[in-house]
Amino acid sequence: MYAITLVIQCPDKKGIIADVTSFVYQHKGNIQYIDQYVDREKGAFFMRLEAELDEQLCSYQAFTTAFEEGPATVFNMDWSYQPIAYKPKMAVFVSKYDHCLYDLLGRFKSGELGVEIPFILSNHPDLAPIAKAFEIPFYHVAVSKETKAEATQEQLRLLKEHNIDFIVLARYMQIVPPALIDAYTSNIINIHHSFLPAFPGAKPYHSAFERGVKIIGATSHYVTEELDAGPIIEQGVAQVSHNHSVAQLIAKGRDLEKMVLANAVKNHVDKKVMVYGNKTVVFT
Amino acid sequence: MYAITLVIQCPDKKGIIADVTSFVYQHKGNIQYIDQYVDREKGAFFMRLEAELDEQLCSYQAFTTAFEEGPATVFNMDWSYQPIAYKPKMAVFVSKYDHCLYDLLGRFKSGELGVEIPFILSNHPDLAPIAKAFEIPFYHVAVSKETKAEATQEQLRLLKEHNIDFIVLARYMQIVPPALIDAYTSNIINIHHSFLPAFPGAKPYHSAFERGVKIIGATSHYVTEELDAGPIIEQGVAQVSHNHSVAQLIAKGRDLEKMVLANAVKNHVDKKVMVYGNKTVVFT
Amino acid sequence: MYAITLVIQCPDKKGIIADVTSFVYQHKGNIQYIDQYVDREKGAFFMRLEAELDEQLCSYQAFTTAFEEGPATVFNMDWSYQPIAYKPKMAVFVSKYDHCLYDLLGRFKSGELGVEIPFILSNHPDLAPIAKAFEIPFYHVAVSKETKAEATQEQLRLLKEHNIDFIVLARYMQIVPPALIDAYTSNIINIHHSFLPAFPGAKPYHSAFERGVKIIGATSHYVTEELDAGPIIEQGVAQVSHNHSVAQLIAKGRDLEKMVLANAVKNHVDKKVMVYGNKTVVFT
Amino acid sequence: MYAITLVIQCPDKKGIIADVTSFVYQHKGNIQYIDQYVDREKGAFFMRLEAELDEQLCSYQAFTTAFEEGPATVFNMDWSYQPIAYKPKMAVFVSKYDHCLYDLLGRFKSGELGVEIPFILSNHPDLAPIAKAFEIPFYHVAVSKETKAEATQEQLRLLKEHNIDFIVLARYMQIVPPALIDAYTSNIINIHHSFLPAFPGAKPYHSAFERGVKIIGATSHYVTEELDAGPIIEQGVAQVSHNHSVAQLIAKGRDLEKMVLANAVKNHVDKKVMVYGNKTVVFT
Repeated sequence: MYAITLVIQCPDKKGIIADVTSFVYQHKGNIQYIDQYVDREKGAFFMRLEAELDEQLCSYQAFTTAFEEGPATVFNMDWSYQPIAYKPKMAVFVSKYDHCLYDLLGRFKSGELGVEIPFILSNHPDLAPIAKAFEIPFYHVAVSKETKAEATQEQLRLLKEHNIDFIVLARYMQIVPPALIDAYTSNIINIHHSFLPAFPGAKPYHSAFERGVKIIGATSHYVTEELDAGPIIEQGVAQVSHNHSVAQLIAKGRDLEKMVLANAVKNHVDKKVMVYGNKTVVFT
Repeated sequence: MYAITLVIQCPDKKGIIADVTSFVYQHKGNIQYIDQYVDREKGAFFMRLEAELDEQLCSYQAFTTAFEEGPATVFNMDWSYQPIAYKPKMAVFVSKYDHCLYDLLGRFKSGELGVEIPFILSNHPDLAPIAKAFEIPFYHVAVSKETKAEATQEQLRLLKEHNIDFIVLARYMQIVPPALIDAYTSNIINIHHSFLPAFPGAKPYHSAFERGVKIIGATSHYVTEELDAGPIIEQGVAQVSHNHSVAQLIAKGRDLEKMVLANAVKNHVDKKVMVYGNKTVVFT
Repeated sequence: MYAITLVIQCPDKKGIIADVTSFVYQHKGNIQYIDQYVDREKGAFFMRLEAELDEQLCSYQAFTTAFEEGPATVFNMDWSYQPIAYKPKMAVFVSKYDHCLYDLLGRFKSGELGVEIPFILSNHPDLAPIAKAFEIPFYHVAVSKETKAEATQEQLRLLKEHNIDFIVLARYMQIVPPALIDAYTSNIINIHHSFLPAFPGAKPYHSAFERGVKIIGATSHYVTEELDAGPIIEQGVAQVSHNHSVAQLIAKGRDLEKMVLANAVKNHVDKKVMVYGNKTVVFT
Repeated sequence: MYAITLVIQCPDKKGIIADVTSFVYQHKGNIQYIDQYVDREKGAFFMRLEAELDEQLCSYQAFTTAFEEGPATVFNMDWSYQPIAYKPKMAVFVSKYDHCLYDLLGRFKSGELGVEIPFILSNHPDLAPIAKAFEIPFYHVAVSKETKAEATQEQLRLLKEHNIDFIVLARYMQIVPPALIDAYTSNIINIHHSFLPAFPGAKPYHSAFERGVKIIGATSHYVTEELDAGPIIEQGVAQVSHNHSVAQLIAKGRDLEKMVLANAVKNHVDKKVMVYGNKTVVFT
């Protein structure tokens, strides 16, 4: 027995669900979970499906090949799949803030995240001791105006060497170079410390304080070339009052950042997030 | 063209989704929305499906008959259906508190609730002017120890006369008699002013104050013979502090009660709530 | 016995609290509630105080005169006061959307808002029947490019004639003219249907949909000449998903708008909101 | 210059605030923050005050002695004080679950908690490696029916030896013996994984699943002899649906437990929590 997750995106047409579910049934599979969404305005169909199959009756290879030649071709699908048991390889990029890193590593050690973490990378050496305490390799790749191109090459080399599937920017305070974005489209998750689209860019807690908002937020999104403008995966908010100084907003925001980033990572790992245009479908 | 909602409950088996979706496809229908859930422990399958069909190609009558003789029989389904355009007839029972009544009627007049309201019934005459202002018939059916049996008969008579589909207890302060519960199983929605199962019965805000909780709640549920113990449809909560008197808890709770009851009613009307055992599946 | 609310704003200095509380004590008053806040950066002090006094020992007139000549002068206070029993006169401005109006009037009739509502004003006649059902005078003051000056005069005349204390814009879809803003500075409460500063201006739900946000919001604020940029009183949010169409965002937002506006009105009525710069202190 | 926090509880009387604030003013202190609450029903007065004083003009010793002999005696106060700079010594008790431990230690290392952690104690050896990674002493004190008395003595000895101020039970799965409760009254903080008073005792997530609640919770409270019935400090909740298995409720609850426990610890450390009867006042 093996379990597989299928994720499908295609133009909406009559009969897709019937066709896909019948396909699974005919291949002796049992659908464990199905989620579906149609964007009627754009005529786009989305589906995520978990199925259990029997290696004896239909191998993983046979199933996926048949699907590609069958429904995927018929409905012109953009699709992907993954064994449910697979643990994606996640690289964590950090700078000097440690709260998101502690949170991710605590969850990782607790067995909450279904990933491997081949390495942590930083443009500063400060957080190396945390990596060491959690027994994860740490690479210090400094980034300056002069060394930027070189640093990008080093990052790409490490990512390739470790077969990284996706990158988490856990308060990484550097612009991600286009070469990385290209190599990891829809696979770089950032946490921005505001309720986007309010307060993009630097120092959002200061801006929130100035504007006198009564609620602050945090936003996880896929990184695109336009800063803080990529597809939003998850957002969280917390109530604040006149009584909160900037420092207290920052402190309160840390918990939001941790939660929102962790939830985005979990949904990404479970292949529950689908990107289309500059938006996401997130099945729950 | 017509649209229909199917709601299905049956023992879990391989191929149900494939069978149902193929059935719709073969009858020239287009599935607009599908939701599905499996309780693996109990082996129970649940599905809600909205489909658009063409009266010329397959009439409402033909479609439902064919479904009954086809998938419904094959999979031993407990199923129901309703034209999406249908507006259920909702009776509102109240006593003296008016906030839930004002809220429901405001939403009704705004066109937010897809129902008809043939009448409002109360064991007190106090809220008759509100019914009048909203131009809805009001029946005063007093309930005392002596008149209880008689009152029940009068209630049943009114419900039948007006072809009522379901009843909303908008802070109705009387025990609902078994005869009504039998006649409207899973069709009487109550709002209880606590976070059940904490603080069932009378004066929950007083109990919450005594216990010093930091969050209060409200719970909408279907009425069963055991008081405040029926299947929960929706719950809501709000933060409170030592600073809230009982009167302030009551005031804050009113907003919760209104929201939670209104959401429960909307989900019930859209046939998104399915009862099994003493729990609900609520598709969203 | 009478009860009074004092609201104070002044430059921060040592001893203000001691001075004010001693003043109340010396005038045989009993402090029921005190709230205080200091903006250290700006050196600004804020206080709200509810006290109970004895008409026999110190009349309302005597108390307020003594306070003006005493602490208010010593500390250079910007202060105001109001008998707790006073019910401010609130005018409601609407256009065609009725949900906020229904909500406010329901709360008003339930006795939840400590106000009088001398009239409802609209630039359209559509909601007159609601005003009638709730037995509140309704004035239709049409606003067009040509009649704008005239309409402003008519609005000011009505406000003056009815001794209006503050105005609530319950989804009033017209720019408020400067003459009204001047006459009612920090006394016109608007509800904007987004999480400001995100999505100011028209059609915020459409913009939220386009951006693919996962949380929507509503913001109540005092009206200033810059559109949707006045001091924020209260904000509320609700989770949404890819699954929400623009129409569903609008529907879900209605509940936010109602709650956020009602809370802002209540805090304003209780004199719990103090404006400074373009921000508010809101005591709770 | 030094800063001090005063926490006061006494019978309500006229003039307390005036007296206390005048006292601070006369001793050349500057009040930074004042919070006050009166339980009118019980006639109880509560105050928390942060003041800045000048060692040259009035020493810490002189100030506190004068306060004891002055207002504290006059108003029959139950009061305590602490330099704001003081870092209380916190012992962490754990069993086998590691999520709350990781969370607390991450916050501790980030500098978010103003405490020292002299040791972690457990009835199981499993979490010793985490203590080691964070460089905190770990004591394994096994507890069985036979060794219970001995274990209690060992616990008391360690607490005394390290001058522990308060204990955090971070999912410690043993009944705390009366001797510890007596020695640390209102100084043992527990996290219970339900929305108390619903689901006290063992396996609350299983009970929540059975009851079909739509919201789960976590509660931090001071430990008293009656299980899960002590004064509540903080509660948190999260929405769930029919779709959550018991395992998913547990996973989702972990985040609640972490947040609620961390907030309770922070408020305790800042002396913002006051116990009276079986309830708490928590200033914010």
